Amino acid sequence: MDLHILDHRLKVTSICKDGLVVFTHPLIKLIFLRNRTRCKFFSLTETPENYTVVLDEEGFKELPPSEHLLVEDSTWLPLNVVSNGHASSSSQAVGVTKIAKSVIAPLAEQHVSVFMLSTYQTDFILVREKDLSVVIRTLEEEFNIYREVGGECVPFRSQDIRNGFQKNGKEAKITVHPVLSPLNKFLVMSLDPDTLPAIATTLIDVLFYSSSQKDGSHSNQDLDCIKFFSFSLIDGYISIVMDTEAQRQFPANLLFTSSSQELWRMVRIGGQPLGFDECGIVAQISQPLADSDISAYYISTFSFDHALVPEEDIDSVISLLQQQRHDPSQV
Amino acid sequence: MDLHILDHRLKVTSICKDGLVVFTHPLIKLIFLRNRTRCKFFSLTETPENYTVVLDEEGFKELPPSEHLLVEDSTWLPLNVVSNGHASSSSQAVGVTKIAKSVIAPLAEQHVSVFMLSTYQTDFILVREKDLSVVIRTLEEEFNIYREVGGECVPFRSQDIRNGFQKNGKEAKITVHPVLSPLNKFLVMSLDPDTLPAIATTLIDVLFYSSSQKDGSHSNQDLDCIKFFSFSLIDGYISIVMDTEAQRQFPANLLFTSSSQELWRMVRIGGQPLGFDECGIVAQISQPLADSDISAYYISTFSFDHALVPEEDIDSVISLLQQQRHDPSQV
Repeated sequence: MDLHILDHRLKVTSICKDGLVVFTHPLIKLIFLRNRTRCKFFSLTETPENYTVVLDEEGFKELPPSEHLLVEDSTWLPLNVVSNGHASSSSQAVGVTKIAKSVIAPLAEQHVSVFMLSTYQTDFILVREKDLSVVIRTLEEEFNIYREVGGECVPFRSQDIRNGFQKNGKEAKITVHPVLSPLNKFLVMSLDPDTLPAIATTLIDVLFYSSSQKDGSHSNQDLDCIKFFSFSLIDGYISIVMDTEAQRQFPANLLFTSSSQELWRMVRIGGQPLGFDECGIVAQISQPLADSDISAYYISTFSFDHALVPEEDIDSVISLLQQQRHDPSQV
Repeated sequence: MDLHILDHRLKVTSICKDGLVVFTHPLIKLIFLRNRTRCKFFSLTETPENYTVVLDEEGFKELPPSEHLLVEDSTWLPLNVVSNGHASSSSQAVGVTKIAKSVIAPLAEQHVSVFMLSTYQTDFILVREKDLSVVIRTLEEEFNIYREVGGECVPFRSQDIRNGFQKNGKEAKITVHPVLSPLNKFLVMSLDPDTLPAIATTLIDVLFYSSSQKDGSHSNQDLDCIKFFSFSLIDGYISIVMDTEAQRQFPANLLFTSSSQELWRMVRIGGQPLGFDECGIVAQISQPLADSDISAYYISTFSFDHALVPEEDIDSVISLLQQQRHDPSQV
């Protein structure tokens, strides 16, 4: 299989709920006005805590400095696994499950933090630019690694990196995080970018004006529904993750899922905000899913991680993760 | 004819060009999300100087206090002339011309300031609430006056007003303001409100993101084109005034004019900002147009006034107004 290092240098940021008003102008530009921005990688995810915005340097320039904006210090690079016909995995599962053993587990072993962003089209594995040498050394046995430069794919080897292989020396401290399972059912959808104007007012309404109605939803997440909505526009491809309640607001027949009305349940990871330095969180969730061949989308946000699993599998997933909780040595 | 005092209490405000970013969130709500606001009277006009926003008290609540927002102190009431079959005017002209002699001139004589807002559908004459008694006494000979209260029209007489008739005592000081005639050609258009979502991204682009491209247009207004774009959503009716350049950005066939592609030229009144206290400015422009039976839309903004006349009449209008300049006693 091939692993591509995409030609985007990303910032991971968070806008607090009260601050969205200040960022409406640049965010609407980044979402709807492709001709006015050179941003090619944009992702916005609303959670009960905040809005996580991941975007490239061109997009980041659009965001005004503000007390409402938190920016993670690092520059992150998106990696992408491309099956090239002779895929080594026989799994039928999609999403992060497919790369759990080949990418996620080895990186966790090397103490590399990853920030996952699954979309309708693919799964982006974001790693810190400073970890790139470790990442390449770790993955080059399994993958042919290419770096995308100006639209071209150039083979890339670890000796291309100036600073040599430095195994991340941090002590592996296994923390098993609590998981919550909100009751809403989610769809992972896409849309022809030329059709985006047709859903503009609905999307604007949902993204920028619907928070006040849902204020109560955070109080008892484990029993209730959660506010979660994710929009990404990456290299011209749109992906939207929304729950069935949000979906009812959109015009029918414009958004599509990979299979008809496939529904997903969420596993939300972390009782406390996870931060960016702990390693192995994605591995902790995706390994047991890979063992059981259960598909999962995985979306990291500024504070918490989120896995989406097929609704019929939610009970087994929860029970797998609870088993693990009682016996963390399995991680 | 009937004169209706509409059931809206309006504020006239101005947002400076740099401040639009701060107001994008409330303005998009007021324009596109009818279900989220109780505002029923909203008008936004971009000129080279600023954005003039006229809106009712419900809408005004949506605007955050800001150094970028100027608010005229008064509460304004919109008046509306309704032909009830036996119209006294034989004029075929539309717009402010039709009401020049019956409304505009008498109010000017009584030193009542008016703020005009012509739309595709009608012409709103805004007067200060504190001038209402003068307005009623002045116009009740010519008109049956009704006040709209909660959707009903109630006959209204001057004795209904607590404070009696106080003729505005200000000395009539006749200032003839310079007029400019920019080269762009304008359309006065409308749109089915249900179709508004279809032009949302274009309208957002034009209103909120196109200023930077036009920065140079203010430098030589008399020879050049002017930045002027007006959108109003009043009691469910949409009116848009734009030039032919802006029109090209909109999808064809959604916006309509009263006659096919009718084009209008602008007369811009005021070399210096006009303020709100001077009376007779609208009269100064509309009387000679009424004498010559030339149609005109009239849009006041925070700093200047704007008349739109049929493109074939622009030369005679300019010459009429220049005559007046040399002989201001005709005013």
